[in-house]
Amino acid sequence: MAKEPPVRIQHERLRDVVRDIFAAAGTPAPDAATVAEALVWANLCGIDSHGVSRVPRYLELFDSGESKPAAKMRVERARPGIILIDADGAPGPVALSRAMREAVAAARETGIAWTGVRGTVHTGAIGYYTSLALESGMVGIGLVAGIPNMAYHGARGIGVATSPISIAIPADRHPPLVLDMATAVMALGRLQQYKAQNRTLPEGAAMTAEGELTTDPSRAATPMPLGGAKGAGLSLAFELLTSGLMGNPIVTEFHKKTPEGRKHRQNASLIAVDIAAFTDPAAFRRTVDDTLDTIKKLPRLAEAEEILIPGERGARSYETRRRDGIAVSADVWSGLKKAAEKYGLATPSP
Amino acid sequence: MAKEPPVRIQHERLRDVVRDIFAAAGTPAPDAATVAEALVWANLCGIDSHGVSRVPRYLELFDSGESKPAAKMRVERARPGIILIDADGAPGPVALSRAMREAVAAARETGIAWTGVRGTVHTGAIGYYTSLALESGMVGIGLVAGIPNMAYHGARGIGVATSPISIAIPADRHPPLVLDMATAVMALGRLQQYKAQNRTLPEGAAMTAEGELTTDPSRAATPMPLGGAKGAGLSLAFELLTSGLMGNPIVTEFHKKTPEGRKHRQNASLIAVDIAAFTDPAAFRRTVDDTLDTIKKLPRLAEAEEILIPGERGARSYETRRRDGIAVSADVWSGLKKAAEKYGLATPSP
Repeated sequence: MAKEPPVRIQHERLRDVVRDIFAAAGTPAPDAATVAEALVWANLCGIDSHGVSRVPRYLELFDSGESKPAAKMRVERARPGIILIDADGAPGPVALSRAMREAVAAARETGIAWTGVRGTVHTGAIGYYTSLALESGMVGIGLVAGIPNMAYHGARGIGVATSPISIAIPADRHPPLVLDMATAVMALGRLQQYKAQNRTLPEGAAMTAEGELTTDPSRAATPMPLGGAKGAGLSLAFELLTSGLMGNPIVTEFHKKTPEGRKHRQNASLIAVDIAAFTDPAAFRRTVDDTLDTIKKLPRLAEAEEILIPGERGARSYETRRRDGIAVSADVWSGLKKAAEKYGLATPSP
Repeated sequence: MAKEPPVRIQHERLRDVVRDIFAAAGTPAPDAATVAEALVWANLCGIDSHGVSRVPRYLELFDSGESKPAAKMRVERARPGIILIDADGAPGPVALSRAMREAVAAARETGIAWTGVRGTVHTGAIGYYTSLALESGMVGIGLVAGIPNMAYHGARGIGVATSPISIAIPADRHPPLVLDMATAVMALGRLQQYKAQNRTLPEGAAMTAEGELTTDPSRAATPMPLGGAKGAGLSLAFELLTSGLMGNPIVTEFHKKTPEGRKHRQNASLIAVDIAAFTDPAAFRRTVDDTLDTIKKLPRLAEAEEILIPGERGARSYETRRRDGIAVSADVWSGLKKAAEKYGLATPSP
């Protein structure tokens, strides 16, 4: 059977399609718009694995009760610089967008603020939330802890999660620096791409179900931590700084095999740092621009076409796809159509 | 010539020897004690490369004017949660110990505080400063930016620095988690150990002066970033979050080859997070203990003797060396003796 071609769609239209589905599933209108915004942002940036392809999974989580379309989030400002959010199973984009907005508002006064989020699901591309701080002239930092899916250094099988860190820093002439990295050599999504293409994995990226290192994509089961003890240590620290501080441990519950431990859930920490507390924000952005110029002009390796800044590729994709539309794979489009039909909406067209 | 045996010395005695040298070099008494404390802490933890072996280098920096024994640090609380320290060339231990104390004091009120340090030298083992937060029931986080000495992903030669991150998290039954990691696969110190022992390097750890990857220790010139784009991105972000926010850029000045750019200096960010703002600290430490129990009991790889938590090896060394003394190599001891003589002190004995 010939593979169906992707559907090309403008980002505004795609956002409306997704928003309508979430609204029909019971998500209050502003929250439905927030989910659509975050998912389509990932597609615009070229991170399709974290974009609208996830819509069916969100709806499953609504059906299973692991997530709630109309969650009652509780927000508490525990200290001038600390905000606690009990997400009550709200979708990641709803909980984490709120979290960064609260952190930014508090950091205007204190200079830095940390929002802890307890019990959300699927946070998606966390660069989206850290980037929200940029609009307010702040630096955004984010950590997420999820269900274990990665090896711990020295251990066999699954130990900790590929928990990511993101750091967003504004520039002027350059796109902002937006680092968004898993603590694995290669996160599960990339591993699955290698599997799908039957490409040999780089050394040290994955372990088999039996606990042996492998470069054979068909035998790869568990991602390995970035740099052994370093990635494993970062992931463990992120679990304690998010799940631990928010009193919702994931790693221990998972390994104790409690029902709670296997349930999909994530905790997060979002931090806003007000640049104006340190220095003139325009002077800071000039320093960032100068530094990025310096990096981009370093002598290149023969095999490197260009020296890239974290987030630069995403920023280019964002511009192109905003202009030319987003190519949504036939599978993903079909998932969106089914979701619309499930809630009695008219079949969406691009 | 037979190699001279190391000198075994009790940690209190070693601290006094180092303190007296710094005091004789013009460091005010409390600051001399602080430098000695931080350096001997590194030796106690088994991080000899960041311990008292650095004393002659500090004295050189005093002589060259890059560091000042009696620096006039300026401390400003710019916002409730932001403290700015102009270190005026104070030795790293003086500036960074003060920085973490200020962050802890502010975080008691705001829940989180960030101290930016501008213009210090040689910060040493940054786990020492993040660990200071533990005494006050807080989490400590530290970033340091220094003179470029590592490759940037895709570039040839030196691009950014092996800038470390440290995270310290308290436990009860376990030693605290103290992560202290460079953003390189292997920092310069480890690379030099491989050179000294003529041991083949792991793949991807180093580049030659000509910009080729090498496993030959004799040709290795530049450490490679941890995980390519990830370690390079973290290092660049740390430069912007420390040197950038503090208005003292190091990476650009270095590559512009200005005199300032080649001068030894470091900037740092130290962050304290008050656990009590989130939850009951005793409950938090129980969660940490449970999580560390879970990790340590994971099924082990055949080649792994034990599953280790970041900082665990250091905590064991600390206990042993506090009890049995520290073995200071003959070279390092001779450096301390020369330093004492330089300032007209009696030749120290163990």
